[in-house]
Amino acid sequence: MKSLHDPVALARDLIRFPSVTPQEAGALAFLAGRLQAAGFSVHRETFSEAGTPDVENLYARIGDSGPHLVFAGHTDVVPPGDEAAWTHRPFEAALANDQVYGRGAVDMKGAIASFVAAVLDHLSENGGKPRGSISFLITGDEEGPGVNGTKKLLEWAKARSETFDHCVLGEPTNPEKVGDMIKIGRRGSLSGTLTVSGKQGHVAYPHLADNPIRYLVRIMSEMMAETLDLGTEHFDASNLEFTSVDVGNRATNVIPGEASARFNIRFNDRHTLKSLKEWIETRATQAARGDVVCRVDYAQGNSESFITQPGEFVNIIIDAIRDVTGRAPALSTSGGTSDARFIKNYCPVIEFGLVGQTMHQVDERVPTADLITLTAVYRRILDRYFGDGAER
Amino acid sequence: MKSLHDPVALARDLIRFPSVTPQEAGALAFLAGRLQAAGFSVHRETFSEAGTPDVENLYARIGDSGPHLVFAGHTDVVPPGDEAAWTHRPFEAALANDQVYGRGAVDMKGAIASFVAAVLDHLSENGGKPRGSISFLITGDEEGPGVNGTKKLLEWAKARSETFDHCVLGEPTNPEKVGDMIKIGRRGSLSGTLTVSGKQGHVAYPHLADNPIRYLVRIMSEMMAETLDLGTEHFDASNLEFTSVDVGNRATNVIPGEASARFNIRFNDRHTLKSLKEWIETRATQAARGDVVCRVDYAQGNSESFITQPGEFVNIIIDAIRDVTGRAPALSTSGGTSDARFIKNYCPVIEFGLVGQTMHQVDERVPTADLITLTAVYRRILDRYFGDGAER
Ligand SMILES: [Zn+2]
Ligand SMILES: [Zn+2]
Repeated sequence: MKSLHDPVALARDLIRFPSVTPQEAGALAFLAGRLQAAGFSVHRETFSEAGTPDVENLYARIGDSGPHLVFAGHTDVVPPGDEAAWTHRPFEAALANDQVYGRGAVDMKGAIASFVAAVLDHLSENGGKPRGSISFLITGDEEGPGVNGTKKLLEWAKARSETFDHCVLGEPTNPEKVGDMIKIGRRGSLSGTLTVSGKQGHVAYPHLADNPIRYLVRIMSEMMAETLDLGTEHFDASNLEFTSVDVGNRATNVIPGEASARFNIRFNDRHTLKSLKEWIETRATQAARGDVVCRVDYAQGNSESFITQPGEFVNIIIDAIRDVTGRAPALSTSGGTSDARFIKNYCPVIEFGLVGQTMHQVDERVPTADLITLTAVYRRILDRYFGDGAER
Repeated sequence: MKSLHDPVALARDLIRFPSVTPQEAGALAFLAGRLQAAGFSVHRETFSEAGTPDVENLYARIGDSGPHLVFAGHTDVVPPGDEAAWTHRPFEAALANDQVYGRGAVDMKGAIASFVAAVLDHLSENGGKPRGSISFLITGDEEGPGVNGTKKLLEWAKARSETFDHCVLGEPTNPEKVGDMIKIGRRGSLSGTLTVSGKQGHVAYPHLADNPIRYLVRIMSEMMAETLDLGTEHFDASNLEFTSVDVGNRATNVIPGEASARFNIRFNDRHTLKSLKEWIETRATQAARGDVVCRVDYAQGNSESFITQPGEFVNIIIDAIRDVTGRAPALSTSGGTSDARFIKNYCPVIEFGLVGQTMHQVDERVPTADLITLTAVYRRILDRYFGDGAER
């Protein structure tokens, strides 16, 4: 099925806005204009919080009945890095060798363009109105702290009594080809900092000091020596990584007073934030002795694992992919976190988008064929979701 | 024996120059003037090296025959820290409750003042000339990197064919009272940095990364688990401390590519710099695996342990202390390094000075009685060293 609306042109339009987080740079305004022209009610909402940059977000809905399918995504992109290393300038949206080059091509302006094209096609062929409701929930803060983005936009929508039945999040999910993989959940993520306070002193008089590095290394060794689990039905094994250790003592003759280590745990459904915090805090408490105190501080934005159980909705996605690409997508929960961690509190969410290989890299790019395929898959999802006798 | 020259007034004069390393601030010029007036040949030498501040130093000699006794010290001081916390301003040299307050009071302008007073008294009573030679070897870089100070001044003196028979270094050596302790040697000191290069990656994909923190913590654990020794006849046990660990990764979702740990080993005569470097490098080599490389970089200014064996010269010091104070000083090699690590390559060196309790602290101060006692001890050392039939 040929798209009436051109996802390649739309993707190139979006890429030309240099919307590096937290800059909106015109990308959301452009999208708002297109959706408004197609009959959507459009809301641009800016959220603020002390210590984080203000972020613009977009919510657009067409239709006022159920079922309500929401497409979620982000127009913000990571910085281009060394622009001189790019074959084509990162915000030029060059078309070369049947590929669109540019920051955001796969993560995820290309997927937004595909969904917009699919929706416009779907509406064109259905008298301009869906048999239910379609929404766009687009943030400008997915690549940033994630404080003033999807999380607050969902709260805002809830306060307006917006309810969602299902969500497709357009993050790049495919390792090799469009159709390889759907993400049906994500591991949880717990980040924090272990800080040991000991007793500062001079290296020549160690008996008058108590080196916190000694305790910190012991706790880290113990934590790294434990196997959290070996994986579960839908999930990979849980994993702990220490991401930084910081003392910052430049004096070679001084035993420092404090030492800290940052950690991140990606965990599956065998654990919860609560059970892991207990696991860590027990070790911190055991390490305390005399003047030595070990404290744990948790980062913002930690999240539980979650899964959208295979079933009707997931089957619509699988069938649409199979019909368009002939592939049977893997159902995965691997990879990093995404805004699905917020959305899953409101409705079942799956993630399906482009091929992730070049995301966040120099020469991020998307084959035009992938944009056309993804548009067709999204269109098929819409047709099935809102089709006669479609069950969800 | 009452001093003809007042060490208290001299100490206060010296303290008033705010000679925080590497600032000379007038302190050396003042000292040069006093010594020149007493008949010393005075040399002020500035040494430079890329990456370190230029430092002024002073060498002053009286006499042209042997024996040649050199007094070594420094006029530079550590910064005063929070000046508001001081009872009297740190460079005011206030006299209160029979104590002189000020940065450098015990470390070590007070000791310089005492030696100057002792020498002037000794010369006054011996017709203005010693029966041999007396020198001052004073640096402005003892509390700093130690690059452009005593080390280079000794090389400079050697190039001029200056030779020394014995040295008294005036660092604060006494824990409680003047006369408690002579330092007859020092442990060696080896500082360096262990750096592990692994493979950077995303915490959600640990199999694609190789976290250097894991290897670094293992090496640190192994090194800390080993006992280097339990001490030797004149020395305390050797000791390893990790003084810093630094990764500096702020991204909670990134496995870093590199991690480093700084270490310092204080070691006795069971070890050498060479044997310890081998010990560390063996562990670094064993940790290497695949992409993981572990490198050791050594700091500047590492030093071997050394000892001035008890004997004639040490006995002159012991006897002088006993005669003046009635105390039998301990012969120690404890504590941090000092410029004795450079001097011991030229002649036997012992250290004896004031009480160290307030050094480097707010309200550093010296009782005037201690200055008078130390002057008397130094005078007694000079008299014995240059006396009739004195043996060395
Ligand atoms: Zn993304
Ligand atoms: Zn000193």
